[in-house]
Amino acid sequence: MTVRVGVIGAGMIGQDHIRRLTDVVTAARVTAVTDIDAARAEEVAARVGAVALPTGADLVGSPEVDAVLVTSWGPTHAEHVLSAIGAGKPVFCEKPLATTADDCLRIVEAERAHGRRLVQVGFMRRFDAGYRRMKEVIAAGTIGAPLIVHCAHRNPTVPDAYRSAMAAQDTAVHEIDVLRWLLDDEIVSAQVLTPRATSKRFEHLKDPQIMLFETAGGVRVDLEVFVNCQYGYDIQCETVGEDGLVRLPDPAAVGIRTAGLHSTPVLQDWKGRFADAFDTEFREWIAAVETGATPTGPSAWDGYAATVITDAAVRSLESDGTVVTVDMKPRPAFYATGGTA
Amino acid sequence: MTVRVGVIGAGMIGQDHIRRLTDVVTAARVTAVTDIDAARAEEVAARVGAVALPTGADLVGSPEVDAVLVTSWGPTHAEHVLSAIGAGKPVFCEKPLATTADDCLRIVEAERAHGRRLVQVGFMRRFDAGYRRMKEVIAAGTIGAPLIVHCAHRNPTVPDAYRSAMAAQDTAVHEIDVLRWLLDDEIVSAQVLTPRATSKRFEHLKDPQIMLFETAGGVRVDLEVFVNCQYGYDIQCETVGEDGLVRLPDPAAVGIRTAGLHSTPVLQDWKGRFADAFDTEFREWIAAVETGATPTGPSAWDGYAATVITDAAVRSLESDGTVVTVDMKPRPAFYATGGTA
Amino acid sequence: MTVRVGVIGAGMIGQDHIRRLTDVVTAARVTAVTDIDAARAEEVAARVGAVALPTGADLVGSPEVDAVLVTSWGPTHAEHVLSAIGAGKPVFCEKPLATTADDCLRIVEAERAHGRRLVQVGFMRRFDAGYRRMKEVIAAGTIGAPLIVHCAHRNPTVPDAYRSAMAAQDTAVHEIDVLRWLLDDEIVSAQVLTPRATSKRFEHLKDPQIMLFETAGGVRVDLEVFVNCQYGYDIQCETVGEDGLVRLPDPAAVGIRTAGLHSTPVLQDWKGRFADAFDTEFREWIAAVETGATPTGPSAWDGYAATVITDAAVRSLESDGTVVTVDMKPRPAFYATGGTA
Amino acid sequence: MTVRVGVIGAGMIGQDHIRRLTDVVTAARVTAVTDIDAARAEEVAARVGAVALPTGADLVGSPEVDAVLVTSWGPTHAEHVLSAIGAGKPVFCEKPLATTADDCLRIVEAERAHGRRLVQVGFMRRFDAGYRRMKEVIAAGTIGAPLIVHCAHRNPTVPDAYRSAMAAQDTAVHEIDVLRWLLDDEIVSAQVLTPRATSKRFEHLKDPQIMLFETAGGVRVDLEVFVNCQYGYDIQCETVGEDGLVRLPDPAAVGIRTAGLHSTPVLQDWKGRFADAFDTEFREWIAAVETGATPTGPSAWDGYAATVITDAAVRSLESDGTVVTVDMKPRPAFYATGGTA
Repeated sequence: MTVRVGVIGAGMIGQDHIRRLTDVVTAARVTAVTDIDAARAEEVAARVGAVALPTGADLVGSPEVDAVLVTSWGPTHAEHVLSAIGAGKPVFCEKPLATTADDCLRIVEAERAHGRRLVQVGFMRRFDAGYRRMKEVIAAGTIGAPLIVHCAHRNPTVPDAYRSAMAAQDTAVHEIDVLRWLLDDEIVSAQVLTPRATSKRFEHLKDPQIMLFETAGGVRVDLEVFVNCQYGYDIQCETVGEDGLVRLPDPAAVGIRTAGLHSTPVLQDWKGRFADAFDTEFREWIAAVETGATPTGPSAWDGYAATVITDAAVRSLESDGTVVTVDMKPRPAFYATGGTA
Repeated sequence: MTVRVGVIGAGMIGQDHIRRLTDVVTAARVTAVTDIDAARAEEVAARVGAVALPTGADLVGSPEVDAVLVTSWGPTHAEHVLSAIGAGKPVFCEKPLATTADDCLRIVEAERAHGRRLVQVGFMRRFDAGYRRMKEVIAAGTIGAPLIVHCAHRNPTVPDAYRSAMAAQDTAVHEIDVLRWLLDDEIVSAQVLTPRATSKRFEHLKDPQIMLFETAGGVRVDLEVFVNCQYGYDIQCETVGEDGLVRLPDPAAVGIRTAGLHSTPVLQDWKGRFADAFDTEFREWIAAVETGATPTGPSAWDGYAATVITDAAVRSLESDGTVVTVDMKPRPAFYATGGTA
Repeated sequence: MTVRVGVIGAGMIGQDHIRRLTDVVTAARVTAVTDIDAARAEEVAARVGAVALPTGADLVGSPEVDAVLVTSWGPTHAEHVLSAIGAGKPVFCEKPLATTADDCLRIVEAERAHGRRLVQVGFMRRFDAGYRRMKEVIAAGTIGAPLIVHCAHRNPTVPDAYRSAMAAQDTAVHEIDVLRWLLDDEIVSAQVLTPRATSKRFEHLKDPQIMLFETAGGVRVDLEVFVNCQYGYDIQCETVGEDGLVRLPDPAAVGIRTAGLHSTPVLQDWKGRFADAFDTEFREWIAAVETGATPTGPSAWDGYAATVITDAAVRSLESDGTVVTVDMKPRPAFYATGGTA
Repeated sequence: MTVRVGVIGAGMIGQDHIRRLTDVVTAARVTAVTDIDAARAEEVAARVGAVALPTGADLVGSPEVDAVLVTSWGPTHAEHVLSAIGAGKPVFCEKPLATTADDCLRIVEAERAHGRRLVQVGFMRRFDAGYRRMKEVIAAGTIGAPLIVHCAHRNPTVPDAYRSAMAAQDTAVHEIDVLRWLLDDEIVSAQVLTPRATSKRFEHLKDPQIMLFETAGGVRVDLEVFVNCQYGYDIQCETVGEDGLVRLPDPAAVGIRTAGLHSTPVLQDWKGRFADAFDTEFREWIAAVETGATPTGPSAWDGYAATVITDAAVRSLESDGTVVTVDMKPRPAFYATGGTA
């Protein structure tokens, strides 16, 4: 059985996922597309033999759509996800699940009321081979109980539209999700420190930032977010436990010796870094939809938690580095299992 | 358009490729299967909704088959490939193209007579990201003109059925093909040296072996083949040029520090090492078949060349390390272009 | 001319330095030794043909002593250093310069009154080849202006006598000194966070600790101190600047592939890690003494600064991670130059 | 007791060793110098407070000389070493021991007649920390019995005076000595292959060369000698055994990430690469001389063996890659022990 997917939002990310569902995931087919720009929806739909529909509601309601992919503008996510839950259809929502914690909670409540998990949020790092191997090593007890995690998230540059709060909301949010999953632990406080800002940025921006998190279990995390680091796209993660440590590999790259240097290239964007993770993410999501299984990826609860934690980080940033306690509701039993791959 | 593939030979490799064509390559579908063991053909075909056919000839002739995949026992390859050429259908043949140079030449002649390239041989390393990056670096002139290549091909163990000549025929043949492509040069002589054999092998086997090749352009290659190295599956390749060198990366792997050691795991089999290369190989082959383009992978001529060169290596092995000149026909203009990706 | 060195304190470190001055530093000779344990002084002195003297004052006053090395118990350092300054003799004092900031200031004042730099403090990392190369790279502008430094200081285990405050006073003090020198910048605040403590320690100890420092120039430092990390002695340092980063190398070690692992050994103690740095430290000190040049190593002011900064870190530790401002006097012009190698 | 060393030959290497004996090796002192250029001998001697003597014979006979260091022009080595043996004085001879196998044998015979080992030959790699650790790993059985060694010896460039035969005599001779010691095995044949020569060399030179050696125990060695590799001075060695492999480390070097590259510097000359090995070599030699112990370094026999093996390699080079059997006398019992550190 081929899963028929309807896509809400045909921008850059939406088109990339449509290509993936078409060319990489054999068990899926895109059958419907909608976008705020109807002409773009038409054009993108035509390329893959899908129909363009006027609204998200039309798409969710279409009998030609088995599952919904939400890649529209962030503030519209909640409405479309709630609509899909209302229709009882599996829905994959690119991050964020919603732009406010309250909207995330409404989704969580709607899903619980529906009685079965329908929502998966697009945090792709859980599907990256390196992070998965790291989680296995931790789970196997090889390094003992985790105590500290050191992370860095570096981009070569960001556009003018990037604001200081986005360091938490758009960038660190990936580490926030993957750390909760890696440690199987909850983040309870956040603190954001600001080194002298790099001169190589737009004036308004606090970059780099150092984010400090503490978990319920007492693990401390330090995360450097540096989105104008110039030299490349570079993701580092090292977990230190009672008996040793485990470190995320750098991507495999040829070694070259010339002119007095041994060198290896550093990637320049996240697409190259996480291309395989995106493929795996969608393959596994489609496989779960196809068989009616509970999705193994990040749940609506994970989407809510990420939003609440990034809110705390932003409040710390805006109050000069105060430690901010994460204001998270108790986790419902409904999300106790099956929420993490 | 979905390419309908018929598979001749439903053994381990055949089944793995059937899985790949079904689950990974969206543009392909397996529609027919045949095997010397009819029951196995039935069972494998049933799994993917294909029909089982009595013979390779039936399969090649079936109107439900657009392209043929040959993964049967080596000595039968030539017959099936010739049959596919006769039917004017694209054919992907697992290595070897044929077990004798004469049979390879018959295929080359048949393809030339047909007038258009139909054959691709299953040397997957040309599709590995590391080798491809290495070829780009060489082609860009970064290391200057190549002079020497150092290679190692190590397997943890091999079964009792493995014979000394197979070090060239089954193992080194992958390096032979990828080196011709990497250097865009032809191998003109072979010499095989035998160090003291490891005690960790079946009695009859000369293992390890050191193979030395010289190219028409004067490049020297040394290749260690060690198929009972115990510690893992390990592929090394370093090309030294006039200005520097480039080295194949080890596969990305988490780094672990425990108990006085920094360690990274070494892979244990070729499947893990070349899984992505196999996927790319079949995606590109199917894409070429779908659009009617000339296949970009190894040609029938490359299959012939590999066989002639491994023959020379085996003769050297059997004559105590004499230098053996490769007895290769002149390359027809027909194969002058398009034969290397 | 051979420099005749008198050594105050013939314990483990004292004996190691006596061996170094005797066997490694050709231009030096140990001529006098004193120790609170007179028998030990006799024994150690006899080994190298030196005389044993009853007190530090006797040793400082001896006409056979050109320069003084203080390796006695910390609380006695100030007295001996002041005595050497009084005698106008060069003095090398193992860290700490003194156990209180006030005593350090008294030494600073005495040296200024003397009018010429006589004191060098034993922070050996400034003499380590890796740190030196890192400083060159930073100074050359290769990575742009520094913004962040990530450090880790790990010991396999520590004895029962180790107290939580010693993480700053005895362990992090090395990073504190080397960072001031590396960045040519002053540390202005300290904050100490405590992850859940490892279970593999004596009960009283907070281990690991994460120390955060800010410099006058706005650079942020995070330093993991983990003195029961089990796996080895491991020093990490990475400086991130506006254009890139530079990382301290791991010590060169053979790579081994066996049993499915690629591994390199991790050192188990600081002696192996910094043996060359100690040799260089004493060679350069003796060379300066011999020629009457200003010592290039850490000055009395650096000793004072390290003490004030570790005091701030300890206060933060004892007040649950409050940010503590470093209470440092203004740097006298006397120490403006020549204080850092 | 300070060992008083007389130095024959005050050229570049001689001066470097004089500096080492003066500044680094505390137990030695240079007391006499001679050189074919008397003015140079005067000047160099004056610098370290030694006397200049007219001839090597004068120097060997001087009562102020306990041990002799021969760093003169190669063809004069034999004469001076024989003279020192005649005087019963320990003699350290830079490689080669002598320029002909016959002269080496005369030295061996003279030393045996003297009845005690007096000669050490200047192959410094046995004193390099990486090779020593490699030997320990092999001796411990960690990688099982050795079967193959892969080596590379690369220099950025060589001067016009460098001839093709020097690739064996001056360059590969270091590997030849260290391999005999590493494997505790004898080399029995040599074969030299010549890839197309690099265009970046003087016209007369065959560069690079690939040297193949076989040992009595059946180990096979391949050694790339490439003395105009442009990019740096790079020494590689990997020993493959029945259970795994061990690889010489690259020198520790800071890692830098800038402008899309992760890079580490490559050394540019052998002085930096083997500075510590030279220091250790002389420290251990002087320690043996001082105590009257048998020197632990390469013996006269090792000097003879290296010469015979390089002769075989040169003959192979001059006969287009023929396999040449090494024509070595049986090893006398006199050299059975103590000859390798």
